[in-house]
Amino acid sequence: MADITHPSPSSVDTPFLALDPVRLDRNIARLQARMDALGVVLRPHLKTAKSADVARRLYVGGTGPTTVSTLKEAEYFAEAGFRDLLYAVGIAPDKLPRVLALRERGVDLCIILDSVEQAQAVVAASRTSGRPLPAMIEIDVDGHRGGLVPDNSAILEIAGILHRGAELRGVLTHAGESYGCRSEEALVAAAENERAKTVAAAERIRAAGLPCPVVSVGSTPTSHFARDLAGVTEVRAGVYMFFDLVMAGIGVCAVDDIAATVVATVIGHRREKGWILVDAGWMAMSRDRGTARQPVDQGYGLVAAMDGTLFEDLLMVEASQEHGTLAIRPGSAARLPELPVGTRVRIYPNHACATAAQYDRYHVLETGSDRIAATWPRIQGW
Amino acid sequence: MADITHPSPSSVDTPFLALDPVRLDRNIARLQARMDALGVVLRPHLKTAKSADVARRLYVGGTGPTTVSTLKEAEYFAEAGFRDLLYAVGIAPDKLPRVLALRERGVDLCIILDSVEQAQAVVAASRTSGRPLPAMIEIDVDGHRGGLVPDNSAILEIAGILHRGAELRGVLTHAGESYGCRSEEALVAAAENERAKTVAAAERIRAAGLPCPVVSVGSTPTSHFARDLAGVTEVRAGVYMFFDLVMAGIGVCAVDDIAATVVATVIGHRREKGWILVDAGWMAMSRDRGTARQPVDQGYGLVAAMDGTLFEDLLMVEASQEHGTLAIRPGSAARLPELPVGTRVRIYPNHACATAAQYDRYHVLETGSDRIAATWPRIQGW
Repeated sequence: MADITHPSPSSVDTPFLALDPVRLDRNIARLQARMDALGVVLRPHLKTAKSADVARRLYVGGTGPTTVSTLKEAEYFAEAGFRDLLYAVGIAPDKLPRVLALRERGVDLCIILDSVEQAQAVVAASRTSGRPLPAMIEIDVDGHRGGLVPDNSAILEIAGILHRGAELRGVLTHAGESYGCRSEEALVAAAENERAKTVAAAERIRAAGLPCPVVSVGSTPTSHFARDLAGVTEVRAGVYMFFDLVMAGIGVCAVDDIAATVVATVIGHRREKGWILVDAGWMAMSRDRGTARQPVDQGYGLVAAMDGTLFEDLLMVEASQEHGTLAIRPGSAARLPELPVGTRVRIYPNHACATAAQYDRYHVLETGSDRIAATWPRIQGW
Repeated sequence: MADITHPSPSSVDTPFLALDPVRLDRNIARLQARMDALGVVLRPHLKTAKSADVARRLYVGGTGPTTVSTLKEAEYFAEAGFRDLLYAVGIAPDKLPRVLALRERGVDLCIILDSVEQAQAVVAASRTSGRPLPAMIEIDVDGHRGGLVPDNSAILEIAGILHRGAELRGVLTHAGESYGCRSEEALVAAAENERAKTVAAAERIRAAGLPCPVVSVGSTPTSHFARDLAGVTEVRAGVYMFFDLVMAGIGVCAVDDIAATVVATVIGHRREKGWILVDAGWMAMSRDRGTARQPVDQGYGLVAAMDGTLFEDLLMVEASQEHGTLAIRPGSAARLPELPVGTRVRIYPNHACATAAQYDRYHVLETGSDRIAATWPRIQGW
């Protein structure tokens, strides 16, 4: 997939999305080592990367279990050879034909749900297709969005429906509220809460005489802070491959771990206002302002030189569609750097999932240089 | 371009971007009639639509002057037959080869700038190519982002450089602060401020014995509230074709004028929390929360039935990547509607430019029905 030209970054027009493969591999190895030590399977979520080239870095010379957020991702990764897929968004019944079509091609695509109506639709689809469709029950451990709380009696009702008419594969949760944690203690507690409640739901199902082979938990914060995963069979996480300023703000990574940055060019100055204008706005960064809810608001991103070295307290403070305004953080004594028109900078994003979504490819940097070693395509849409 | 199948909307998986051609044409006609009455050329900005099919609705049976926000848009619209293009983001010198390549193909692509360095780069490119490259000087009328204030002496210096070594096409501004207006009086004043300051800059250039044929102003709010455009030769606006909740909040349009909505499917309920979950999250809506700064915060969007009728006070209050949470507006006495799993809804977005950017096509609705008459491709990226 990778092309073999090695252009200088200046031969690619800005804005573009630069990916540092050294940091990517380091982030991948870090979580894999944790999961290996804790004795659970890692099922990486590919919603951030949406790239087969990135996905292949996850498994030594092969493919492995993956999570996806859309059926387009499922179809794309199936085509690229990934055969063990979990579509981790509650199933809409009218998407079942696409799920069945992938399963007909020998892909083990599992779905999730949290209602009797969805379970009945899965049973009907299993009957029509003549093959039991595997599904997991979504558990709510922290009130974040969907799922059933572990003592909700609907869990056993749904488990029974799936067991009789489809395939009851297990239970699944996502500790989405862990993004709001502000200390290691809180992260460790969120991970234990996620584990304990999901395992409790699995044990209720088993106590009712029903199978529950898979117990799947995960979020990037909890996966990095779980101290014990007893009863859990697999962990899901996605943004950890790239990391971002939101994850750095939570304390899951350092800014220096961030693997994906946006390259932009200086197109103007408003010296009397202390502004530098670049050709990357919210279209290039996304509108994600995730750090605005954190103790340190990073604007639309932190600004670095092309070698990745941060300029002191230089942020993208405002963004229009194709313009970004760089300025020194309010209250800082740092001085605005001299960046003449035409200078290229790298911007560390708030939220890698949202920023990467704006691009149809990665420009992969050469190790130890700002030259481009390859372009890796990525998918967009549904 | 349009395909000729007429599928039911249920044959397209959600989320998708629905475009109502009746509202589109009505919005286009409204601003065109205003500009015709005021005697100025309308140069629509295609950064919102990014679609040749939409662009062709702007001109009766032909093409006309257009504005673009990226060189990819310039190349795409040139390919589709649009030959009079203004790239309205300050030029990065290393993009000049792409500009020259389009001009070599007979496309009248004009660029903008606001510094001596950029003007010198344009002169150098004009000399190299043997053809004077047209450029406009960006004027700042309200402190929004780039540009030179009308009495900045750099305007005359740049004008002289361009006139001697390239082509001085005129002056241009964008009254970006008009998005913050909260009354008709303020909008009228913003439009007059935009006009007066830009015309003043043009007259300074002319008083110095230099040409300034084009005086270009524009924003969707000011273009709809300008009462007089004396001295202005053209007006630019983009989001008016689709409109959105931000524009409705400013008072430029009604919610019922919004032409582009996101279709989503109900995938779950948290009745004890008053939540309905849909399969459209921030990936489908964008992270744009433009109404958060307005008197009425519309969350991630207002929710309607498939016929476009709004549910009373039902908003998308929260969004994950592929999940949206619908709930009644805080403080409202409205009741959560019964929307079973599988129900489709339409969501009016905060910011049409950002929402449309998430899609590679429009699903165009049939007049007076929720059936799909055509798909229109749109471009993404740079």
